[in-house]
Amino acid sequence: MHIILFYELFFFSQLRKAQQGNERPKDPKLWPYFQDGLRRIDYVLTYHVQKPQSTRKQSSKSCLCCKFRREQSNPPAHEDPELAAQEQRLDYHDDDQRLRREEFEENLREMGLEMEREEGNKIPGVGFLKIHAPWEVLCREAEFMKLKMPTFKVFVICILSQKVNMFMQKVTAPLQPNVGENRMENVKHLSYPFSREKHLVYHQEGILFIIIFIYNHLYKPISNHQQVYEILKRTKCTRAKYVMAILYEWMLNRCSRMYVILILSLQILYEEWASYSIFYKYQPIGLIRKYFGEKVGLYFAWLGVYTQMLIPAAIVGVIVFLYGCATVEDNIPSMEVCDERNNITMCPMCDRACSYWKLVTACGTARASHLFDNAATVFFAIFMALWGQQLCSPFMFTRTLVAAVHQLHPRAEYEFHVMKKSLKKEQSPKSLFLLCVFVCSMQICVTLAIVFGVVLYRVSIMTALHMSSTPTFRTNIRATVKTTAAIINLIIIIIMDEVYGAIARWLTIMEVPKTDKSFEERLIFKTFILKFANAFTPIVYLAFFRGRIIGRPGKYIYVMGSYRMEECAHAGCLMELCIQLCITMLGKQLIQNNLFEIGVPKLKKMLRQRKIDKKHQEELNKTLHRHEKDHFLGPFVGLNPEYMEMIIQFGMVTVFVASFPLAPLFALLNNIIEIRLDAKKFVTELRRPIAVRAKDIGIWYTLLRGLSKVAVIVNAFVIAFTSDLIPRLVYQYMYSPDGTLHGFVNHTLSYFNVSHFQPGTEPMEPMHLGYKVEVCRYKDYRDPPWSATPYEFSREFWAILAARLAFVIVFQNVVMLMSDFVDWLIPDIPKDISIQIHKERNLIVELFMKQERGKKYRNTIGDPSPQPLRSRPSSQLTHRGRVEDFHDGEIQS
Amino acid sequence: MHIILFYELFFFSQLRKAQQGNERPKDPKLWPYFQDGLRRIDYVLTYHVQKPQSTRKQSSKSCLCCKFRREQSNPPAHEDPELAAQEQRLDYHDDDQRLRREEFEENLREMGLEMEREEGNKIPGVGFLKIHAPWEVLCREAEFMKLKMPTFKVFVICILSQKVNMFMQKVTAPLQPNVGENRMENVKHLSYPFSREKHLVYHQEGILFIIIFIYNHLYKPISNHQQVYEILKRTKCTRAKYVMAILYEWMLNRCSRMYVILILSLQILYEEWASYSIFYKYQPIGLIRKYFGEKVGLYFAWLGVYTQMLIPAAIVGVIVFLYGCATVEDNIPSMEVCDERNNITMCPMCDRACSYWKLVTACGTARASHLFDNAATVFFAIFMALWGQQLCSPFMFTRTLVAAVHQLHPRAEYEFHVMKKSLKKEQSPKSLFLLCVFVCSMQICVTLAIVFGVVLYRVSIMTALHMSSTPTFRTNIRATVKTTAAIINLIIIIIMDEVYGAIARWLTIMEVPKTDKSFEERLIFKTFILKFANAFTPIVYLAFFRGRIIGRPGKYIYVMGSYRMEECAHAGCLMELCIQLCITMLGKQLIQNNLFEIGVPKLKKMLRQRKIDKKHQEELNKTLHRHEKDHFLGPFVGLNPEYMEMIIQFGMVTVFVASFPLAPLFALLNNIIEIRLDAKKFVTELRRPIAVRAKDIGIWYTLLRGLSKVAVIVNAFVIAFTSDLIPRLVYQYMYSPDGTLHGFVNHTLSYFNVSHFQPGTEPMEPMHLGYKVEVCRYKDYRDPPWSATPYEFSREFWAILAARLAFVIVFQNVVMLMSDFVDWLIPDIPKDISIQIHKERNLIVELFMKQERGKKYRNTIGDPSPQPLRSRPSSQLTHRGRVEDFHDGEIQS
Repeated sequence: MHIILFYELFFFSQLRKAQQGNERPKDPKLWPYFQDGLRRIDYVLTYHVQKPQSTRKQSSKSCLCCKFRREQSNPPAHEDPELAAQEQRLDYHDDDQRLRREEFEENLREMGLEMEREEGNKIPGVGFLKIHAPWEVLCREAEFMKLKMPTFKVFVICILSQKVNMFMQKVTAPLQPNVGENRMENVKHLSYPFSREKHLVYHQEGILFIIIFIYNHLYKPISNHQQVYEILKRTKCTRAKYVMAILYEWMLNRCSRMYVILILSLQILYEEWASYSIFYKYQPIGLIRKYFGEKVGLYFAWLGVYTQMLIPAAIVGVIVFLYGCATVEDNIPSMEVCDERNNITMCPMCDRACSYWKLVTACGTARASHLFDNAATVFFAIFMALWGQQLCSPFMFTRTLVAAVHQLHPRAEYEFHVMKKSLKKEQSPKSLFLLCVFVCSMQICVTLAIVFGVVLYRVSIMTALHMSSTPTFRTNIRATVKTTAAIINLIIIIIMDEVYGAIARWLTIMEVPKTDKSFEERLIFKTFILKFANAFTPIVYLAFFRGRIIGRPGKYIYVMGSYRMEECAHAGCLMELCIQLCITMLGKQLIQNNLFEIGVPKLKKMLRQRKIDKKHQEELNKTLHRHEKDHFLGPFVGLNPEYMEMIIQFGMVTVFVASFPLAPLFALLNNIIEIRLDAKKFVTELRRPIAVRAKDIGIWYTLLRGLSKVAVIVNAFVIAFTSDLIPRLVYQYMYSPDGTLHGFVNHTLSYFNVSHFQPGTEPMEPMHLGYKVEVCRYKDYRDPPWSATPYEFSREFWAILAARLAFVIVFQNVVMLMSDFVDWLIPDIPKDISIQIHKERNLIVELFMKQERGKKYRNTIGDPSPQPLRSRPSSQLTHRGRVEDFHDGEIQS
Repeated sequence: MHIILFYELFFFSQLRKAQQGNERPKDPKLWPYFQDGLRRIDYVLTYHVQKPQSTRKQSSKSCLCCKFRREQSNPPAHEDPELAAQEQRLDYHDDDQRLRREEFEENLREMGLEMEREEGNKIPGVGFLKIHAPWEVLCREAEFMKLKMPTFKVFVICILSQKVNMFMQKVTAPLQPNVGENRMENVKHLSYPFSREKHLVYHQEGILFIIIFIYNHLYKPISNHQQVYEILKRTKCTRAKYVMAILYEWMLNRCSRMYVILILSLQILYEEWASYSIFYKYQPIGLIRKYFGEKVGLYFAWLGVYTQMLIPAAIVGVIVFLYGCATVEDNIPSMEVCDERNNITMCPMCDRACSYWKLVTACGTARASHLFDNAATVFFAIFMALWGQQLCSPFMFTRTLVAAVHQLHPRAEYEFHVMKKSLKKEQSPKSLFLLCVFVCSMQICVTLAIVFGVVLYRVSIMTALHMSSTPTFRTNIRATVKTTAAIINLIIIIIMDEVYGAIARWLTIMEVPKTDKSFEERLIFKTFILKFANAFTPIVYLAFFRGRIIGRPGKYIYVMGSYRMEECAHAGCLMELCIQLCITMLGKQLIQNNLFEIGVPKLKKMLRQRKIDKKHQEELNKTLHRHEKDHFLGPFVGLNPEYMEMIIQFGMVTVFVASFPLAPLFALLNNIIEIRLDAKKFVTELRRPIAVRAKDIGIWYTLLRGLSKVAVIVNAFVIAFTSDLIPRLVYQYMYSPDGTLHGFVNHTLSYFNVSHFQPGTEPMEPMHLGYKVEVCRYKDYRDPPWSATPYEFSREFWAILAARLAFVIVFQNVVMLMSDFVDWLIPDIPKDISIQIHKERNLIVELFMKQERGKKYRNTIGDPSPQPLRSRPSSQLTHRGRVEDFHDGEIQS
C-alpha cells in the first residue's frame, strides 16, 4: 500500500527575506494574514489543482487533482497529455480525492482549526490551504503532549566561582555565536509540563516553543487515511472552546511579539550559523532546535560534539606523524635497507619478466613506511580506541542530548506516538527475511568481486608494465598502479554507494515493517551494512589479505591461471593501506560534498523553476507571497544521509586509524565545512522540516558504539599483523645479539635456492644485476634450503605469530578495561547537568510546597470560590498573586 | 561525625501471630489502637529509657536516655555500673537528648502526625512512641511523591490466544503460590500518579500500597539531626487539615479492610513463601513487594529469575558431565596412558626423594580428567558465557524489574531524595583514596601470601610424605594433600571474608562519602573487590600458574631455597581446579548458609532474650503487646550480604565453569534452599524493614555485567591453557600421521638425559623401576638433548602457543559477537510488557480525552460551580459520575 498524501505539506516558515521588505512591507507584524486581516496564517498545505480551464466542477471554483507522493517532492503525477480513455476514470478519481480532502478539512475544522482556501491564483495547478490554529487548540495539544516548558522561574547554575566564570565567558566569547541567548547561559528557566491551569507561569520562550512545536506537530500524523480517522476520533470531543477570554487577549499580544522573534531567528540563523566565515564558532543549537525541531537540533548538536572531539584527535595524530618524520633518520631497519654495504639480493617480484633486485632500491618505501609505522602508532591506536569509546559514552551522549533537547529525561508519554502501529498489510516475514539476507550477501559478494577485479587489474597492469623495458618508466610503475587502483576503487565505491542505498530502500519497502520507527531502523541498518561493506572491503583486503597468501618462491600461489598474487612492498602493506585510506577519505568527502550535496540540489531547484516558463517567472517573483515562493524549495528528506556520511567517516577515523594518523585531521577539516554546508542547505535550500520530537539519535548511537568496538579489534590486528612492530620487538628482545635492531632486516629475510624455481618461472634475465645469483632472499620466516625441513615455517615464524596474537589479546583487553575504567571514572551525567537537575528538582519541591501553602491559605480563610482557572473577575487577584509568586523568587543561586 | 539516632526505629508490623488470637482477641479489626480506642497505631518508635528508679526528671514520668546507634541494633551504650563523675555529664547529655527528642516529636506533630507515649511499662528501659498517621497526611505525601498507583480501571493483556492461555495457566498452576492474586494475572490495573483530586479512582490495592509505603517512608529520612530540620522546614506549611470529611469517612471504612489484608498477607507469606516444602513454586513477588517494599521485592525477584535461569544451565552441565563419563572409554590419550605396552619412563616428581616412575601409574587421573576436559567443554563454556551475558541483559533485567516493581519506568522524581546530600564533614578525599588503594592492595597481598603459604604447605608435605617409604601410604598422598589443602583454603577464605567485610566497612566510613547512595556503593565495591580476590585467588593460581613456572628437569625453579614448585598431574591441572572449585562452592555455601545465616541470628536472639531475667520472661510473653514483642527481633541490616553471596556464587558458576560443568547444578540446589531460608529469616527472624523505593538493583547490576565479561576471557584462557584441548587439536591436524590422536601422549613428552641433572638433585634410588634409566620423559614441548639447541622450546611449543592464543581471540570475539547478536535479536523490553505499556498509554490517552469531554460538557451547560473536589453536596453527583466513568470501561481487551 502506498502512503497517499492529499496535500504536500509544508510549514509556512521560509520568511528569510521578510525583513528585507520586498513583500507586504505594509504589514507591521511581518506575518501574513487571512483575508479578514485578523487571523494569522500558521501553516500552509498545498495540493495539486488540475485543468483550471475545465468547468466540470461547480462546487469549487477550480478542479482538484489528487497527487501521489512518496518521498519525492513534486513530480506531478499526471501531466497534461493524457489519453481520453483515462478521462472518465480520472474524473472518478478526482472526485474521490476531492471528497476525501473535504472530509479531511472537515476533520481539521472539528479539531478547532480555522482555514482559508486559495486556488491557482498565481501559480497554476497549485492550491493552497491556509490554516490558522487558535490559541486554545495549541494549549490543549501542549497539555496533552505534556510538553515541558520553561517557566518564569529561573535559577543560576554556577559551577565555577564568579570570577572564573566571567573569565571563561570572556575567553570563549569570540567562539560563541552572536544570538543573544548564550550570554545568559548560567541562568536557566525551570521547566515544567505544560498545564492550562497554570499557563501564566510559563516563560515566553516556552510559549514560543509551544507554538512552533505544536504547529508542526498538529499536522504530523496526517500521513494516511487511517490516521486522519484517528485524529477525527480524538477530535470529536474537543469542539468546544475554552472560556479564557481575558487570558486569551493577554496572550495574543505576547504572541505577536513571538512571531516576530520567530521570523528574526531565521535571519539570525542565516547570519550566525549558515556562513563559512564563522566556522570557528559554536553553533546556536538552542535556536536551531527552536526553529527546526529537536531531531534536527540533535543532529547538529551531535555533529558539533563530534567535530569538537576531533580536535584533540587531530592534534595527537599530527604529533604522531611529526614524530615519525623526526625519527625517520634514526630508524635502524630503514637505515639497514638503505645501506649499500648490505649487499642483499632479493628474489624476483614476478615470474619471468622480473629479475633479481637489490634490497637497497626499496630504500624510499622503507623510509616512507616509518612515517606511519613507528612506536608512537601503538599509543595512538590505544588513544584513538579510547577516544572512540568515549565519544560514544553516555557522558558525551548526555552532553549532546542536553545541548540539543535542553532536558535530560525522555518523555515516556511520547513513545506512545512512536509505537502506534499503522495498519499496513503485513507480508510473511520469514521468506522476506531470507530474501533480504540473500540480497545483502549477494551485494557483499559483488563488492568482493569488485575488489578482486581491482586486484586483478593491478596484477595484470603490473606484469604488463614490467614487460616493457624502459627503466625510467618502470620506476614509476608502482606508484602509478597504486594510485590509479585506489582511484578506481574510489569511483566504484561512490557509484555502488548510490546503488546500495536504492537496494536497501527497496528491500525495506518489500519487508513492510510494522511501524515507522521500525521501517527507519531497518532501512538504516541495511544501508549501513551495505555501504560499510562497500567502503571498507578494499581497505580490509589491503590490511589483512594482501601479501599474505602469496606462497613462497618456487611455490607461488596463482590466480586465474597464471597471475601471481600481489606482494606488498618490502616495508609491509601499511604504506599502501595509508594511500588507499587517504584517497578514499579525501575523495569521498570532496566528491560527495561538492557533487551530491551542493550540485544536485542546485540542479533540482533549477529544474523545478524551469517548469514555469521564464517570462512569467520574473513577474511572478515580484508578486508571489512568501508561502508561494517556498513551494519551489526542495523538500526535507530526513537526516539519514547526513548521519550515514558521518558514521562512515567515523569508521575511517577509528577503525583503521593505526595505519593513518592523519585521518582525524582530514575528518576535522571536512566537518568544519560540513556543518556550515548543511546549515546553508537547511536555511536556504529546503522547506522548513516538520519538527519532530526525538529523545536520542536512535539507531545511530547503537551503530556508533558497535563501530567503536570493532575499531578496537581491527586496530589490534592492524598493529599486530600489518605493521612490523611485533617482529621488531621480538627480534630486539629474543634474537638480537646486542639488544638493538641491528640485523633485523637480515633476520626477516629467508633464503631461497634459485635452482628450486618451478620450471618456466625463473627470470628471463638472470644476469640483470651483473652477477650470477645462487641464493636470493625473500621476506618470510622459513627454514633455509639447507636445513632438515627446507622452506617450512621456522621456529621464529611461530614465535612471532604467538607474539602477534598475544599482542592482540593484550591490546583488546587493555583497551576494553581502560575504557570501562574511564567510563567508571566519568559519571554518566556531567556534573554541571546533574547540579542543574538537582536544582530543578529542589525548585519543583519548593513550588509544590508553595502551592500547598496557597491551598491551605484559601482553605483556612474559608473561601470556597477561587478556583485555579475560572474566568471570573474574583479569581483575577489570585492569578496575579500566583504570577508574582513565581516572579518574587526569580533569581536564586 | 556519627549518625546519631534518638530512637530505634521499627515499623509496627510483626503481626504474624495476630490471627492466632493470643492477644487482644476482642479487637475485631486485629489492630492495636491508641488508648482512646479510635486511632490505630501505625508506627512505633522505641527509645532507651534509663534509670527508671531515678526521679530527677519531673516533666516526664521516667527518665530518658540517649542512645547512640550505628548499624548495630541494640547494644545499650551505657550500662548500669557507671562512674559517679560521669553522672553529671550524663545528666546533661540526657537532658540534651530529651530536649532533642521533644523537638523531634514536635516536628512530627507539625507534619500532622498524632502520637502517644508509653514508657517502661512492661519492658524496663524501653520507651515506645506510638504514632498514628491521619489519612490526609498519607494522601499529601503520596501526591508529593507522585506515587504511581493502580486505579479501578483494568485492562486485559492477552498475548496468547484464550485457549493457550488457559492451558498454560492449568499447567503452571501447581507452580504458582497460592496467594489469590496470580489467577488474575492477565488483568492489570491502570497505574497513574496519585492525586488527591482524583483519588477516588484508585484501586484498593493502590490505597493499601500508599498506606504501607508512606508509613514506611515518612520516617525514613529521620536518620540525623539535619534531616529532621529539613522535614521541619518542609512541614511548616502543612499544618492545616484538608476538608475532605465525607471522603475521609468513606475511606476510613475501606482502610479498615485493608489493614486486615495487610495482616493476612503476612500469614500468606508465611505459608506460601517461607516454607521448604513448596520449594518448586514461584515466589509471591507481588505480596513480598507489598509487605517488605520494593527493594526487598527486587532482590527476591532477581534471585528467582537467577535460580530459574540456573535450571537450563544445570541441565546442560549435567549432560556435558555425562558425555564425559560416556566417552571416557573411547578417549585415545587416556587409553595410551593406561596402555602397559607404552613403556614410558617419566622423570622424578621431586628432587632426590622421588624416583623415576611409569606413566601408566597416572592412568586413573588421566581418565578422571577426561570427565571435565573433553570436546563438549568448549561448547559448554560458550553456552555459559552467553548464558551469563543473557542473565545480565536488559531483557532479563526488565523482566525482574517488572516482576518486582510492577512498572517499567523509574520515577525520576525520586532521585531527588537520593541525591540529597547530607551535610557530613568532608575530609580530603585524595589522601583517603590513596589510603584506601593502599589498604586494598595490602589485603590482596595478604591473600596472595596466604595462597603462597598453602602452596608451600602442599609442597613441603608432599616432599615429606614422599620421604616415607610405605608404598600404600604414598599412593594416597596426592589425593590427601590436595583435599586437605583445599579445605585449608576454604577455611581461610571464610575467615578472611569476615575480616575483609569489616575492613571494607572501616575504610568506607573513613572516606565519609557525600551521600548515602555513594556510601553504599563504595562499601559494596570495596567489599566485592576484597571478597572476590579472597575467593578466587586460589582458583586463579591453580588454573593459570600452577605447573607453569616449574622450569624443566635439570633446571628446576626453586622457591624458599630448596622447594621445587609444584607440578600438575600428568593430565593437567584441570582436575585439581575442579576439586578446589567443588570444595569451595559446597563448603562456602553449606558453612555460610548454616552457620552464619541460621546459627548466628538464632544465637543473637537468644542473647537478646537472655538479658531479661527468665522468670519474668514467660510472664511477659503472655501480657506483652505485639509491638513490644517485636522489640526483641533482630533488626534488618540490609540486603548487601545476600547479594554479595549470590554474586560470588555467580562468579563461580560463570567464571570457571569451563573447568567444572557441575557448578550450575550445585548453585541451583543451593539457591532453592537459599530462597526459602531468606524468606524464613525475613518473615520470622527480623523486624519488618522500612520499605525503600528502588528503581533497580543498583551497583550489583554493574558488578554482574562486569563479572559476565570477565567470565568470557577467563573461560577462554582456561580452555586454551589449562585444558589439553588445543594441543590435542594441533596434534591431530598438524602432526598426526594418520589424523587421529594416536601418538598424542608421546608427542607431548620431551626427552631428558639423566646425566644432565644438577648435582645433588638426581634420585636417590635410580634403580627403583628395576632397570637403569638413561633418558626420562617430562611433559613439555622442548627440543631433545641430542638436537642443536637442547632443552630450548621447540617449534611445536610455539605453534601450540600461537594456536592457544588464537583460540582465546576467536573465543572471546565470537562470544562477544554472539552475545551482541542475541542482545540485538531479543528486545530490551519483553513483548508482553511492551504490549502492556502500549495498552496503558492508550488508556491514559482515552482517560485524558474523557476528561476533556467532561470539561466540555460542564462548560457548555454553563454550570460554573461543580469543581473537581469540593466537599459540597452538589459536587457529590459529579464525583459519582466520575467514578462510574472509570467503572464502565472496566474490562477492555
